[in-house]
Amino acid sequence: MKILVVNPNTTASMTNKIARAARAVARPDTEIVAATSQAGPASIQGFLDVATCVPGLLEEVARHKDVDAIVIACFDDTGLDAVRTLVSVPVLGIGEAAYHAASMIANKFSVITTLSRSVPGLENNLMRYGLAQKCARVRATDIPVLKLEEGDPATLSKIRSEISASIAQDNTEAIVLGCAGMADLMAQLSAEFGLPVIDGVAAGVTFAEALVNNRLGTSKIGAYSRS
Amino acid sequence: MKILVVNPNTTASMTNKIARAARAVARPDTEIVAATSQAGPASIQGFLDVATCVPGLLEEVARHKDVDAIVIACFDDTGLDAVRTLVSVPVLGIGEAAYHAASMIANKFSVITTLSRSVPGLENNLMRYGLAQKCARVRATDIPVLKLEEGDPATLSKIRSEISASIAQDNTEAIVLGCAGMADLMAQLSAEFGLPVIDGVAAGVTFAEALVNNRLGTSKIGAYSRS
Amino acid sequence: MKILVVNPNTTASMTNKIARAARAVARPDTEIVAATSQAGPASIQGFLDVATCVPGLLEEVARHKDVDAIVIACFDDTGLDAVRTLVSVPVLGIGEAAYHAASMIANKFSVITTLSRSVPGLENNLMRYGLAQKCARVRATDIPVLKLEEGDPATLSKIRSEISASIAQDNTEAIVLGCAGMADLMAQLSAEFGLPVIDGVAAGVTFAEALVNNRLGTSKIGAYSRS
Amino acid sequence: MKILVVNPNTTASMTNKIARAARAVARPDTEIVAATSQAGPASIQGFLDVATCVPGLLEEVARHKDVDAIVIACFDDTGLDAVRTLVSVPVLGIGEAAYHAASMIANKFSVITTLSRSVPGLENNLMRYGLAQKCARVRATDIPVLKLEEGDPATLSKIRSEISASIAQDNTEAIVLGCAGMADLMAQLSAEFGLPVIDGVAAGVTFAEALVNNRLGTSKIGAYSRS
Amino acid sequence: MKILVVNPNTTASMTNKIARAARAVARPDTEIVAATSQAGPASIQGFLDVATCVPGLLEEVARHKDVDAIVIACFDDTGLDAVRTLVSVPVLGIGEAAYHAASMIANKFSVITTLSRSVPGLENNLMRYGLAQKCARVRATDIPVLKLEEGDPATLSKIRSEISASIAQDNTEAIVLGCAGMADLMAQLSAEFGLPVIDGVAAGVTFAEALVNNRLGTSKIGAYSRS
Amino acid sequence: MKILVVNPNTTASMTNKIARAARAVARPDTEIVAATSQAGPASIQGFLDVATCVPGLLEEVARHKDVDAIVIACFDDTGLDAVRTLVSVPVLGIGEAAYHAASMIANKFSVITTLSRSVPGLENNLMRYGLAQKCARVRATDIPVLKLEEGDPATLSKIRSEISASIAQDNTEAIVLGCAGMADLMAQLSAEFGLPVIDGVAAGVTFAEALVNNRLGTSKIGAYSRS
Repeated sequence: MKILVVNPNTTASMTNKIARAARAVARPDTEIVAATSQAGPASIQGFLDVATCVPGLLEEVARHKDVDAIVIACFDDTGLDAVRTLVSVPVLGIGEAAYHAASMIANKFSVITTLSRSVPGLENNLMRYGLAQKCARVRATDIPVLKLEEGDPATLSKIRSEISASIAQDNTEAIVLGCAGMADLMAQLSAEFGLPVIDGVAAGVTFAEALVNNRLGTSKIGAYSRS
Repeated sequence: MKILVVNPNTTASMTNKIARAARAVARPDTEIVAATSQAGPASIQGFLDVATCVPGLLEEVARHKDVDAIVIACFDDTGLDAVRTLVSVPVLGIGEAAYHAASMIANKFSVITTLSRSVPGLENNLMRYGLAQKCARVRATDIPVLKLEEGDPATLSKIRSEISASIAQDNTEAIVLGCAGMADLMAQLSAEFGLPVIDGVAAGVTFAEALVNNRLGTSKIGAYSRS
Repeated sequence: MKILVVNPNTTASMTNKIARAARAVARPDTEIVAATSQAGPASIQGFLDVATCVPGLLEEVARHKDVDAIVIACFDDTGLDAVRTLVSVPVLGIGEAAYHAASMIANKFSVITTLSRSVPGLENNLMRYGLAQKCARVRATDIPVLKLEEGDPATLSKIRSEISASIAQDNTEAIVLGCAGMADLMAQLSAEFGLPVIDGVAAGVTFAEALVNNRLGTSKIGAYSRS
Repeated sequence: MKILVVNPNTTASMTNKIARAARAVARPDTEIVAATSQAGPASIQGFLDVATCVPGLLEEVARHKDVDAIVIACFDDTGLDAVRTLVSVPVLGIGEAAYHAASMIANKFSVITTLSRSVPGLENNLMRYGLAQKCARVRATDIPVLKLEEGDPATLSKIRSEISASIAQDNTEAIVLGCAGMADLMAQLSAEFGLPVIDGVAAGVTFAEALVNNRLGTSKIGAYSRS
Repeated sequence: MKILVVNPNTTASMTNKIARAARAVARPDTEIVAATSQAGPASIQGFLDVATCVPGLLEEVARHKDVDAIVIACFDDTGLDAVRTLVSVPVLGIGEAAYHAASMIANKFSVITTLSRSVPGLENNLMRYGLAQKCARVRATDIPVLKLEEGDPATLSKIRSEISASIAQDNTEAIVLGCAGMADLMAQLSAEFGLPVIDGVAAGVTFAEALVNNRLGTSKIGAYSRS
Repeated sequence: MKILVVNPNTTASMTNKIARAARAVARPDTEIVAATSQAGPASIQGFLDVATCVPGLLEEVARHKDVDAIVIACFDDTGLDAVRTLVSVPVLGIGEAAYHAASMIANKFSVITTLSRSVPGLENNLMRYGLAQKCARVRATDIPVLKLEEGDPATLSKIRSEISASIAQDNTEAIVLGCAGMADLMAQLSAEFGLPVIDGVAAGVTFAEALVNNRLGTSKIGAYSRS
């Protein structure tokens, strides 16, 4: 099968990291088509970016019509409802996928994300999906998204310190890494802290494979119908 | 990988049907180990059966120590928390898996189950998982579980009539078949009614594959720890 | 004061109707600046239109920098969070304003909107604002938005019949007209059915005046900050 | 128009402060009729005062039959449902008005009130109005209501310290001043802390004007009917 | 022990019926002190009566200082918080007691009350107590409270028809009789419909005995403190 | 009347303590039949014990057919739904009973329990009963259940320190002792901390008496029916 993994920001280096994370978990016979939005913000931080990235995302989706499933590789799940309305194949946001995965393996999870101003949007998504009650807390590291690309050791250290705080204060049982740019840290942090650490890109790709294997697509009656 | 699909009732013909549904969606390199509980009720209908099937289920789980994931093939997700405490691999109930799948492809879903007295247990599970707000309604057909094994045409007709009612009255966008014994009806009903029809066995097996591919297991700190 | 009332669809005749409704309730010293989006869908029906109308809306907002408050004249409250992030003045969606008004004068209200596929978006907004528990039901008339512009008597008849059903079945105490295109029906229907009928344009303009008189603007720390 | 602003406690100096706050935001053609309850507690602190102030409040309301709207100037929104049942004009509590205003300009707000034993009543109101999810926390300063009248600098210092704590700990984006006796502090604290500070008297008066301009009154079918 | 059962309306014949219901379940060594409010409405129907009956209720409570527990014998639980603030002994409303009893013996219950305009107040109470999720529906018979005193056969017939509807439509498992004036119908209706029928007076008296036997009184720190 | 108080773990010394607590509050004419499960875990700590104790519990219940009510003396309310399905008399869990009692005498309560891994199960129960919103927090002392039997002074000191923390941090108004093994501490801690301290065994026995006196049994239509 062919899965479109679309980065709704315009930073190609993030797309590369996302593509690696996607291919690392995909089945041998799954083709990952990684696409970068051609227009819109360089990173998605806060409600304005969440809205303005959508046209570029929709264009990218329209450009790849022959795919079996779509993963929107932004942790804010930008444009999720719009893309679902546009197509009939399954569509997953990586935030959504990560929350579902966390709910299947832990009683409570916490999310470690980038800037504080992204927290309310993630909290809204969790409420919308019904999974807010499974989330102990959404924590911000106050690391800008693109800073994650630079590989600064201080960055990893801030993420580590929020994971520690989450275990001590939130009684969390699993950690969701709340940014596509953190995808490469999953294994290392899980081993270090002794609890599941979930990356949304990997969750999104494997759940997309699962839905395709179930021969399930986006429902076209009701919310996502076009007529 | 090896996935244990365990039927927590003692009816082997249901296990066969479940195993067929599981193998139909599993990857070629996934081995499905189908097991039938050796002690407990012949079918699981209501809170008493839900409780009394657990020891047999736990024994069956303990008998298969080398598996990579476990699917509990009863729509009530019987013993889910107990099995998660017992093992470190991912564990999914087929009810749980179906609700998550439905939440990924539709804004609202309805569940069509067997007896009325099973409805409260399913509603409790939905509330517990956070997904009650995505469920328009849990509907009973008042068909006993084992009656499904007999292939009576009246049975399918009752399921059909509840699906019709659900589309007309609940504004539902997807149907979850609320019994492992309905696993073989998925494709037919989806084509007939023009909306996704979800079988929990298929959803459970493919999500288990997804979690294993993510290298995620049940969290062993907090709720599911043993010490 | 100067209030920008921006129609996020491109249908100028709807903007005219909206402007009339706005001016009918505005204070004598309030200037209503009515603007029509220059790009995007002709009407907003469902999640795809909700997303694709935002760039045009944001451009229109950016074009009018010297206003004291902004009313987004689409009942889906499209782009509300994005516009709040862009500016410092108060911003109200007409759906949001209508729900708040209804909550102040009735214990329960119902919403009568256009197409069925718009219902989930409105329900999500109500949940997000916290006001879902005050809403008895969101009802669709299945009248397309632009059909409202044609003045067909069958249109009013369908709206009437949903109001009757809502009083009889939902124990509703007030009606919210769920489309900017229904703004001219408020007085007539209220007199006819003997209960408050709320138009979001009027509610939005008068609440915007209220917030400005309170010297309150959109908070720029947290969710709507830009840095 | 004529708006009755009724102080349901018997302390006339508080009524004066309330009247000043009301007139400071009211339109030039709005007449503010400020009334003080003639019987009942001198201040409203806790559930017993909330109940015993109602007869005096209702008498005061009955004494002013020719008003266009009523604002109950106690942050506990005492007697709100009873007054709504008594009259047909719009009725707003100042707590209610402040929560609605805060919800329109911020994603999350906190309330700073007087005594700890008033907190549960305010939390109940927030739950009842649906707006509890928008409220990060209700904080007590443990300043008695009448102490606010004395202009003690220690009083303002305690309010300041709770606002600071709220910004640091609750991620709040706006502050609601939870007592009619704090009405004069709004502008000063907003400038000092750089976020919106909301006074319920001002919010109540301007929203009352808005509802009257919308020609909306309290619904007289259902909860607030008298027959 | 001595339990004050106070009827907060002024209709002595209702107090007699309430006293009979209380004595029928009380232990031999429990003295039931039945009191009728000396001022206020003759029956409690809607929010205005709920508020105006409180002063008379509080006077009656103050008149009986040597009791071990208090039962407020109005299904709206009028003045419950105020009475709890006034005293240190346990205080129960009969609505509250009935909802708790129903929650202990059934998964879902329905309430059959008098007038439609009482329904919102009962729904608010259920939400406040947390028990709304156990209540399938609050149904009105549209029989005025005092009509119940007349023994009209049409009255019983309306109650019967709502119970039937509740079983058929709400999947209810127990019925709560939502008015002190229905106390004498409990046994008859339970036998007739084959499900538990709960009278709040009986529930209130026996739960009051239970709390006294546990040596539990109303907490005097927090919400119900007086200082 | 005769009340079966059944300890679902196999530790007879705990049954003795439970029986003493039960008899201390029971009416003179109530016979307490204290039973110890003959098979299953020695203490119930976490989800695995909660499930595996049920068969022994059900056998004990079946062995005592002539009782008027049943109290399940484990704070996790193990097997509650199953026992309700098995019998027609009232059945109460001691956790459930304690939460209901606390809700009747305080606006908010906290629970002090044994191990951290028991917390999620108690939180799930509170959500299921609807009473989560009345519970400020479930706190663990990290004392194993059987350690409570040893009378170590350090044990009481840990409980005391959690009560202090709960008053200071949770604004709690009453304490629920979250383990049958704490039943003997109720009076002492209540006097010491000046707030109600609730023991579930005492609450369960007295509420069972109350339900029997109301002639109420478990509903046998719907969730707890057997056919």
